[in-house]
Amino acid sequence: MKIIGIVAEYNPFHYGHLYHLQSARRLTEADCVVIVMSGNYTQRGEPALVNKWARAEMALLSGADLVIELPVAYAMGSAEYFAFGGVRLLDSLGVVNAICFGSESGKIENLQKIAAILADEPEEYKELLKAQLSGGLSFPAARQKALSCYLRDKYGKDRHTRLLKSSNDILGVEYLKALLRLGSKIEPVTIGRVGSGYNSTELRGKFSSATSIRKVLSINQWRYAKKLLESSMPTESLSILEREIELGRGPVFPASFGPSIISLIRRMSADELKGLPYMEAGLENRLKLAADRSGTYEELVNNITTRRYTATRIQRILFSLLIGLDSGIFGYFNSLGGPAYIRILGFNRTGRRLLSSIRGRTDLPVITKAADFKTSDIPGATEMLSLESNATNQYVLGCENPYFRTSGSDFTHNVINIDSSAKDA
Amino acid sequence: MKIIGIVAEYNPFHYGHLYHLQSARRLTEADCVVIVMSGNYTQRGEPALVNKWARAEMALLSGADLVIELPVAYAMGSAEYFAFGGVRLLDSLGVVNAICFGSESGKIENLQKIAAILADEPEEYKELLKAQLSGGLSFPAARQKALSCYLRDKYGKDRHTRLLKSSNDILGVEYLKALLRLGSKIEPVTIGRVGSGYNSTELRGKFSSATSIRKVLSINQWRYAKKLLESSMPTESLSILEREIELGRGPVFPASFGPSIISLIRRMSADELKGLPYMEAGLENRLKLAADRSGTYEELVNNITTRRYTATRIQRILFSLLIGLDSGIFGYFNSLGGPAYIRILGFNRTGRRLLSSIRGRTDLPVITKAADFKTSDIPGATEMLSLESNATNQYVLGCENPYFRTSGSDFTHNVINIDSSAKDA
Repeated sequence: MKIIGIVAEYNPFHYGHLYHLQSARRLTEADCVVIVMSGNYTQRGEPALVNKWARAEMALLSGADLVIELPVAYAMGSAEYFAFGGVRLLDSLGVVNAICFGSESGKIENLQKIAAILADEPEEYKELLKAQLSGGLSFPAARQKALSCYLRDKYGKDRHTRLLKSSNDILGVEYLKALLRLGSKIEPVTIGRVGSGYNSTELRGKFSSATSIRKVLSINQWRYAKKLLESSMPTESLSILEREIELGRGPVFPASFGPSIISLIRRMSADELKGLPYMEAGLENRLKLAADRSGTYEELVNNITTRRYTATRIQRILFSLLIGLDSGIFGYFNSLGGPAYIRILGFNRTGRRLLSSIRGRTDLPVITKAADFKTSDIPGATEMLSLESNATNQYVLGCENPYFRTSGSDFTHNVINIDSSAKDA
Repeated sequence: MKIIGIVAEYNPFHYGHLYHLQSARRLTEADCVVIVMSGNYTQRGEPALVNKWARAEMALLSGADLVIELPVAYAMGSAEYFAFGGVRLLDSLGVVNAICFGSESGKIENLQKIAAILADEPEEYKELLKAQLSGGLSFPAARQKALSCYLRDKYGKDRHTRLLKSSNDILGVEYLKALLRLGSKIEPVTIGRVGSGYNSTELRGKFSSATSIRKVLSINQWRYAKKLLESSMPTESLSILEREIELGRGPVFPASFGPSIISLIRRMSADELKGLPYMEAGLENRLKLAADRSGTYEELVNNITTRRYTATRIQRILFSLLIGLDSGIFGYFNSLGGPAYIRILGFNRTGRRLLSSIRGRTDLPVITKAADFKTSDIPGATEMLSLESNATNQYVLGCENPYFRTSGSDFTHNVINIDSSAKDA
């Protein structure tokens, strides 16, 4: 049996995701597709449009067999941490043969070359990176320049670093780097992008980005948005989205957390802010100043963002603050080697069968019911699950319907069980 | 020149307040009326409907000559602290001849008898109070029962403690107690109530309570509310209210702070909650539990409130948490003897003239421009002004218009100067 893994957010699940999932299955002749999916927060540093259970359901109804949660510290992490957390989970399952991810070109060799340098971090490269960073560039921009210089110094030319300009390729390189770092036997497979880039804000039918879908939802009534989204999302996903909106459990937008986050920063000292992930000296004062001057989430992010401090990085800091993730606990997780457990969000019949083989192969505990899980024996598991639950308990405060704002759903929600798989059907 | 003082909230200023102010002036033949007014939070423990500058302006346009801010720790305090802070400020001015407050009966002798016992706290009374409290009653209810028992034991009868059932009389007794405690020479004068009780929720024209006015605003569009309130509020006050609402700076309702407060409590441990004012052993767990179960401010308060823990007490705890007032700092203020400065919110010509004589007589610094005030020499002044500013910086997040949500208005807003007094006119 061939098993492939995909790391994804599905925020929300659209035709581009469906295309990727189906291509991955076909290309690799996979019998089973495992998704490692972000929970209630995403790599952009912001809360997801609808909660993780709804998004896992979307994935399962569109062909995924098993959905595993990427713990929030990694789900909200920079590309390096996001990819590392995802690959580490897939690797820890002990059954996954290949990982499939999208890239601009669909050619893996170019990405591999860069990944090797980044995994290796030769001294010359490190010096170049330091120089670029001290020039005031953001990390992604500095890294691209440093790599380009390094390749030119070394080989007299550089054909590859332009790859580091697209989010897809940046993630691709990070997946490859993580595989190298873990000495994983999982085979990397990449699928070329069709349709809009990750950040495109305009709806384009089957090729619409998740960003553009969220934008449609943020500015339109559901009745109208639904019509617009029919050509961009599979029917099953759209129905789930509709159900969540009708219940008042979604859409959840970052803006609704603005007053809470501003209130929090105003209550804190600059020194206390220093302890957050992705901070650096001086940024704490920018945060304090911006919180004093801003009345909304959008203003807050804009008032902090510069060329050096990207909006995504600022968003990660703000929501890390909200959910109670500090650099100490994040460092602790990483010192343990990443995710401390395999937390199942949902499965179909194929996925459920796979779970048994996973249980026999993995070193990590498998959680299907968090309330029954004894975390005490596994280093970091208590802290990781507790952070996950705290993150959810803040996330639900963004629901329009107060009924869904209660705490504890991480311990009370049942795993999603779709009792028929694409293969069985 | 005869100068009288009134401690008030004016949340918002209505005909009942006007009647009280005018009666006080007439009854005492006063030349000048000084108001000690709550700032942005009130004795109910909640944010005021419109900010302190707007409310000071209402008072000045309705006959007050000088408006002084009651620091937030006292403004949000139980009757004892509220009254103590107010009386201490009036006493510290060194020029006030009388304090005027409302009571049910308008008879001061009955209130004096109770105040004397409470100020004195004889052992027998203390024992009785302890017994009632341990029976699970709230403090006000326990105190009334203990006093009643004490009076019956001592004199075979009790005609007075029923007074402790009305908020007006409870405050009256506390004003008298504070005067005794401070050995103040200020003469107490009480004016009998006309119109609705403090807590009445129904509008009754000239006799409407502030509670009923706030309720009208919470459930009606301004266009309609304005018509309803014309018979309950003086024209000048209604115009100021209208201006604030049109600007989007008001009305500010406690409910809009619900998500921030729930988010805060969910992030905190029960142990951390213990450090808040008005807490007692076990209540921290009730707060934690309720924050997990509640989606709105109203639910939160209801889920914590019991016979023993009154809603007002809970509200004080919740907003103390929001503004950063803990029992340590509150204890420190009290150890200093109350308010550390005289902070002027506004004046007319008479009030401004009075300010010069106050400056010559008082031991406390007089602040008319907080930005220029050097707090460093006065014990507690830095902490008190900083708490006031923090409280404001949270308060403004309740404004509908994001433009008014910026921090720092305590240091940038000018004192209200109404350059004509009732006498001059």
